[in-house]
Amino acid sequence: MRRERIFLFDTTLRDGQQTPGVDFSVEDKIAIASMLDDFGIDYVEGGYPGANPTDTAFFAKRRTRNARFVAFGMTKRTGVSAANDPGLAGLLQSASDTICLVAKSWDYHVAVALGCTNEENLENIAASVEAVVMSGREAMVDCEHFFDGYKANPDYALACAKAASDAGARWVVLCDTNGGTQPEEIRTIVASVIAAGIPGDRLGIHAHNDTGQAVANSLAAVEAGVRQIQGTLNGIGERCGNANLVTLIPTLALKDVYASRFETAIDTDRLQELTKLSHAFDELLNRSPDHQMPYVGASAFATKAGIHASALLKDPRTYEHVTPESVGNLRKVMVSDQGGKANFINALKRRGIVVGKDDPRLDRLITIVKEREATGYAYEGADASFAILARRILAYVPDFFHVESFRVMVERRFDANGQLKTVSEAVVRVLIDGEETLSVAEGHGPVNALDLALRKDLGKYQHEIADLELADYKVRILNGGTEAITRVLIESTDATGARWWTVGVSDNIIDASFQALMDSIVFKLLKNRDGAVAAAAE
Amino acid sequence: MRRERIFLFDTTLRDGQQTPGVDFSVEDKIAIASMLDDFGIDYVEGGYPGANPTDTAFFAKRRTRNARFVAFGMTKRTGVSAANDPGLAGLLQSASDTICLVAKSWDYHVAVALGCTNEENLENIAASVEAVVMSGREAMVDCEHFFDGYKANPDYALACAKAASDAGARWVVLCDTNGGTQPEEIRTIVASVIAAGIPGDRLGIHAHNDTGQAVANSLAAVEAGVRQIQGTLNGIGERCGNANLVTLIPTLALKDVYASRFETAIDTDRLQELTKLSHAFDELLNRSPDHQMPYVGASAFATKAGIHASALLKDPRTYEHVTPESVGNLRKVMVSDQGGKANFINALKRRGIVVGKDDPRLDRLITIVKEREATGYAYEGADASFAILARRILAYVPDFFHVESFRVMVERRFDANGQLKTVSEAVVRVLIDGEETLSVAEGHGPVNALDLALRKDLGKYQHEIADLELADYKVRILNGGTEAITRVLIESTDATGARWWTVGVSDNIIDASFQALMDSIVFKLLKNRDGAVAAAAE
Repeated sequence: MRRERIFLFDTTLRDGQQTPGVDFSVEDKIAIASMLDDFGIDYVEGGYPGANPTDTAFFAKRRTRNARFVAFGMTKRTGVSAANDPGLAGLLQSASDTICLVAKSWDYHVAVALGCTNEENLENIAASVEAVVMSGREAMVDCEHFFDGYKANPDYALACAKAASDAGARWVVLCDTNGGTQPEEIRTIVASVIAAGIPGDRLGIHAHNDTGQAVANSLAAVEAGVRQIQGTLNGIGERCGNANLVTLIPTLALKDVYASRFETAIDTDRLQELTKLSHAFDELLNRSPDHQMPYVGASAFATKAGIHASALLKDPRTYEHVTPESVGNLRKVMVSDQGGKANFINALKRRGIVVGKDDPRLDRLITIVKEREATGYAYEGADASFAILARRILAYVPDFFHVESFRVMVERRFDANGQLKTVSEAVVRVLIDGEETLSVAEGHGPVNALDLALRKDLGKYQHEIADLELADYKVRILNGGTEAITRVLIESTDATGARWWTVGVSDNIIDASFQALMDSIVFKLLKNRDGAVAAAAE
Repeated sequence: MRRERIFLFDTTLRDGQQTPGVDFSVEDKIAIASMLDDFGIDYVEGGYPGANPTDTAFFAKRRTRNARFVAFGMTKRTGVSAANDPGLAGLLQSASDTICLVAKSWDYHVAVALGCTNEENLENIAASVEAVVMSGREAMVDCEHFFDGYKANPDYALACAKAASDAGARWVVLCDTNGGTQPEEIRTIVASVIAAGIPGDRLGIHAHNDTGQAVANSLAAVEAGVRQIQGTLNGIGERCGNANLVTLIPTLALKDVYASRFETAIDTDRLQELTKLSHAFDELLNRSPDHQMPYVGASAFATKAGIHASALLKDPRTYEHVTPESVGNLRKVMVSDQGGKANFINALKRRGIVVGKDDPRLDRLITIVKEREATGYAYEGADASFAILARRILAYVPDFFHVESFRVMVERRFDANGQLKTVSEAVVRVLIDGEETLSVAEGHGPVNALDLALRKDLGKYQHEIADLELADYKVRILNGGTEAITRVLIESTDATGARWWTVGVSDNIIDASFQALMDSIVFKLLKNRDGAVAAAAE
């Protein structure tokens, strides 16, 4: 049976613009349009030319090579002809292939927001679509609030959709603008639209995630006959976001219930670029990636439970719904309180340490890890600290240097100009091969000062740590209140691009930070000597 | 028509424990079980007694008053009787009301993970359930990998479910362990289970979010006849998370397609506590809240007002799928909008400050708050700091005392016995009515030392702060890496039982802590003088 084509429509640059904290510059939009175009998205909706200077500038040129470049705007106003409507004129002037007009399809909105009659709204829709068609461009209409409008006045909502379709719109998009529609309702209402005479291959779905079901609603609409899905990269969008294309694309491609019936422009080769696309988008916007995002998240294929690990080692099909490689992601097996012996052995193997399951030192390591984790250590997020601990018990770690003592001071006082300033200073006494060095450093805060002082003069090891950098620092207070334990996690990098995490736990935050900093330096020195250790760092 | 009862089963403390970066201490578990119990959840699955020390300690006592307290574990091993299986013994010894046994229901897993025959697995299920029933406890069985198992060998998967049911399990839970099943398949397979003889009101659904449809799958299962939903707070869980109860509960209660047919233990009053519950859980775990989480996220009801005509703003039904108040959330209209101002006026009124909406000082306060929040302050969680700031701008705050300077020192060295110890000392110079006091104090860590030194000698105010105590301390690093900003939140209490939160932000953690400590003391002094301030503190 021939598979039907689903068209992917990305509105990251238009509806995604409404995301709290997101503001695209023209350069941002050019870069993102290019990423989407290269990936194979069918339609790239670039924005609203005429509504703001950025979008108007963005639409001065066509910004995609293969994807249809879409300009968004409103249907003409009442009492003005299509030829004389300035909004429409702006759209027709833009360097777009396709024009998408948003139309009211809820009678309440027509009255309150537009202040015109239901009939006038239908005329505005028809005339606007005709104007676009006559200009030689592809026309689409987003029927805003379609599902709520249908529930309130089904005949009128259908009339709006038909007005668009009859006037020549290639696509009529049913929008769940408030995001509250349920999958069951999507299916029923889409079926009614098709029964009313607009075929599914002219219908699109635009879902929002206000009940956590934008993806499900999009798929329900497809099951009911719709053939265009609108969404955004990483599900950005206002309120709870738009439908996440990064979730929809692999689901359509890899899940048999859809893959057997439908195809998109994203073939299995392109699909392997998905994780890269998702991460590149977050990088560009300086957004923290969602580690738990389906398919592409850092944790999407990470498993912790000891009860899974042994089976997983034998056949990943038993624990993974798709292979991570199919979407360009990686499998991760983590160490933790929950780890069974098999988990530990595997974790050690990946760090270049081979140990037999009956080796008594293995039991000792497991016991120490569990005891420490009960006091606050979290080795799962501190790969490098785990590697050092494991090597100390199962192999050998050289005594590179000793910190005999340290002193950290934070002082807040008035300076010579009468300004209040805070200074942080650390003094460290280090013993290397019987020789003592004393170093002092200033920093933004006490931990920064301690870090700089520790790494200021490590004698014969100094050149080895020259490229060591603290990349990230996280603090967690456990058991709150006055009996608090502080857990510090530090991420370090070096010139090779490797990244590793270390942990420290104490009731004293400086002490906890000190432990994590020490492990960071020791790991760097181990890494410089031992290929297996280096290989284990990403 | 009488509505059918849906039972809510929370596995935050068991399956949620697998979340990357999540580690519950016994104290954490006690607090969370209490939150769930108070909220009205039917079942609280507390963990896996016998698998690790934390869970075993947690199950030493019954930790809920109304909710059923559930212990999780495995069916007995092959070749051992139920009476002699140590895992089962651990479960039966625990202080639980209900025991939930995880059973293999995919023949491939039985062979590869358990290494026994299909028949032996069925016997293990039956014998284990019987043992639980005979102990007088409610038995449940989680049929692991049920949907994949059904696709591979439907007869065997059904046989496992029936073995559980026939042996007396109150609930048979169908688990989508790999998270890859689609809603259409959930519906079909659930219908088959019911057709095979296990009624829907004995069936549960346990969905995972690997294709972003855990919520949709749970609802699809309910539509197909299932009457227990398993999920976690804020959707935590391994990989992409479990079904989010914080999304499911309001959807069931507020969406007519479900609310007309089903009811849960969460009535509309309790539902208004939902946002608080979700935020309290994030706070306890020191997790960044997901601003875009449905219903409860800070942005869930936030619109960039420009896109709505002002007339529409008068009727939120036109752009909101449910009212924010129904789930205890707030409507946010961002930046300079009139709606934003109304929010501020209300917030101030609740703190005993009355200000007219045209008072220019109100605009100044709003501007300062927004600027500070852009740099990291979070007044939403720091009521007392907000009250002080508001009073400084709109009313008057006495200059009780000045901290001229402070110095905090942490030193780690060998003591007289050759033991490494860390000492923290703080010196504070305070000016009160022209008189200077110099105080020194030692503490567990630098912040504790600073706190004690600050409160050691405040002259004429000393007796007023005698009952002031630091109850909790939280740290958040914002903007990670080397440009990190630290936000500190401090909770204080006094002899009256009042509790208040204060905030401090700086790139220096000691500085940030100092700000929060100062606000804490100033608030205490204000409170002692001003009934309205005192009333506003919980």
